Amino acid sequence: MLTIQEREIAQKMQTLKNASGSHSPSIFTIAKEIPQIHIDIDACFLSNPYATSLFMDYIQKELIDSKKLRDILEFYPSQNAIISQYLSQSLDIEQDCIFVSNGAIEAIQAILHNFASNKIIVNIPTFSSYYEFVTPQTQVIYYDLPKENDYKLCIESYIDFVKKHKPQSVIIINPNNPNGDYLPLDSMREILRNLAEVENVIIDESFIHFAFENADFTPISYIALFKEFHNVILLKSMSKDFGIAGIRAGYAIMQKSKIDKLLKNGYLWNSNGLSEYFFRIYGTKDFRDKYEIVRKKYIAQTQQFFNDLAKIQGLKVYPSKANFALLELVNGVKSSDFVIKMLLKYGIYTRTCNDKIGLNGEFVRLASRTKEENSVILNSLKDLFGGINKAR
Amino acid sequence: MLTIQEREIAQKMQTLKNASGSHSPSIFTIAKEIPQIHIDIDACFLSNPYATSLFMDYIQKELIDSKKLRDILEFYPSQNAIISQYLSQSLDIEQDCIFVSNGAIEAIQAILHNFASNKIIVNIPTFSSYYEFVTPQTQVIYYDLPKENDYKLCIESYIDFVKKHKPQSVIIINPNNPNGDYLPLDSMREILRNLAEVENVIIDESFIHFAFENADFTPISYIALFKEFHNVILLKSMSKDFGIAGIRAGYAIMQKSKIDKLLKNGYLWNSNGLSEYFFRIYGTKDFRDKYEIVRKKYIAQTQQFFNDLAKIQGLKVYPSKANFALLELVNGVKSSDFVIKMLLKYGIYTRTCNDKIGLNGEFVRLASRTKEENSVILNSLKDLFGGINKAR
Repeated sequence: MLTIQEREIAQKMQTLKNASGSHSPSIFTIAKEIPQIHIDIDACFLSNPYATSLFMDYIQKELIDSKKLRDILEFYPSQNAIISQYLSQSLDIEQDCIFVSNGAIEAIQAILHNFASNKIIVNIPTFSSYYEFVTPQTQVIYYDLPKENDYKLCIESYIDFVKKHKPQSVIIINPNNPNGDYLPLDSMREILRNLAEVENVIIDESFIHFAFENADFTPISYIALFKEFHNVILLKSMSKDFGIAGIRAGYAIMQKSKIDKLLKNGYLWNSNGLSEYFFRIYGTKDFRDKYEIVRKKYIAQTQQFFNDLAKIQGLKVYPSKANFALLELVNGVKSSDFVIKMLLKYGIYTRTCNDKIGLNGEFVRLASRTKEENSVILNSLKDLFGGINKAR
Repeated sequence: MLTIQEREIAQKMQTLKNASGSHSPSIFTIAKEIPQIHIDIDACFLSNPYATSLFMDYIQKELIDSKKLRDILEFYPSQNAIISQYLSQSLDIEQDCIFVSNGAIEAIQAILHNFASNKIIVNIPTFSSYYEFVTPQTQVIYYDLPKENDYKLCIESYIDFVKKHKPQSVIIINPNNPNGDYLPLDSMREILRNLAEVENVIIDESFIHFAFENADFTPISYIALFKEFHNVILLKSMSKDFGIAGIRAGYAIMQKSKIDKLLKNGYLWNSNGLSEYFFRIYGTKDFRDKYEIVRKKYIAQTQQFFNDLAKIQGLKVYPSKANFALLELVNGVKSSDFVIKMLLKYGIYTRTCNDKIGLNGEFVRLASRTKEENSVILNSLKDLFGGINKAR
């Protein structure tokens, strides 16, 4: 599939990828290291671009036009326990159950190191930090999501597996990354009812704003489950749904005693001026109302994109209620070649899943971007795969 | 000294202070919780305001005017090992000895938790995080800096103390916080020659850009000592010298094996878009040249400020080569009353040192701000203390 020149660039990309561990090199890094590559669309990037525009409108009006940006960058941000008060307003939960973090990744590290250093069950395929950031003494047990069931979690089989292994902790990402499978609230409740003996049930709901259980895309909150089950730890990145990965905003919800332990010897000033600013406006109804509009608009476009993708020959699109879809290349194309071809021929950066443990086959993860970008992605894929739609 | 109304506000301030642990509540928090207080000058705040202006010039030109700010906030920052490459250029040391952190405080926590969990010697008075953020099993031994010697470190006595207690780690802040005493490079080398058996000699050089050993204020770097002594860990906040506390930029320099351990299970994406941007421009000669000008200007003004302060009756000003001075109230005024009076009568926020262990007396820490603000502070102090200069 690749020309000699393309293969050389593929080699350089592989070197960058190796240096990035089990994550994609950033587009800044690629631009710096391989100047031949011009990325027009970053479809690795799991982020609602309309929400970014909304945030930028606030920044322009409230910080730049009003000359308040300097204050945000010059002075110390508030401490963790102060910023959690803003979040308390938007999340309808007590402030002392909220741990504000420098991106969700900091909360993941904090939880794995402080509360989950014994036996832990991780479902695969998954977000790699969940097994990479464990402590040296942690025993990781993998639960294989079955390919024959589109990598969906089967509640009964999962509960049996957990009961058999008796772990200290389990992790469920919902919707799951990289396949986007969504476990409805009632199913999650059913799991929790059966896992009372597990010390920590860590639920990563970083993609929950893209999920829906009805046609109105009514917001779903797992905070209800935290209130019902004492062993739940909720984790949330704001990077994806709010499109603000660069400001590093995340949080975790857990029992007050755990928060106390974390704040007792660290994490005091882990927010920055702009993440504090974000959490402050997220506490306002004005922002949340505007956000709801761009959230629903993006879900509708994303689901339409996935439907259109599914019509392209050579691709299997796994059902997703996240803002990305797992694509299986079922026409003999290797995913690493596909990624390079998309990059060099169309300027579209996609995520190979070669390095994801628990996937068997040639997989790529594709993010939903703006409507216009999704359209370019669709046309490029049709072009690449011969333009023939599946007979349906 | 205080009126009834002032005493009521003092109570509220005390409540905020208690909620902030052993740190000052931020001016944002104060503004929100006690609207009666109007802070004109934040003299708690240890930061070069001219450097902030320099950074804001870059932000305006390179990010706002050129419409690149969105990229910085929308996309993921680079990973730790990429950003340390920028720093490597400015610091003249290998990239793989640099740990980039979300403010120096994150590096402090990481080092205390990962490498210094046994016996540690902390000199007091000091920055409280050095004893608050230790692990539960850590044994902290305090070395009292002697008041009779202006809380200066006496090399011989210190070396004897360390040799007697045989700690795993020691911490030296240089210049020290809160008194500003500076230990010259040669004295530090002498200490290090004698402490080869200590596993970690942690040197916090967050205020080193304000220190000087000659009349030209030539930059001092302790990196030379890291290259000479394998057990040195250097810690550096960028908040103070570059006036950018809100972006949370810091780093630590340590042996590669230690960095590898830290990055193996965390700290992957701990920078944000703006801290990455800062580290990127800090890597350029253009920025560093401009920074040198504002650094030297600020030192000259700061030292002049300290000299003028020393002439005010009722105050003892401890010798400082940092950007703050420790003031002892020697006229019977209580430091908590002084702080409230300065706040309510003059709009100047100063740092009581009541909560600093290792200080014996009534102490306040006062930051050097702009020349104009320093002048207002001086006049306010003269007004408060009767306007009479010391006979000299």
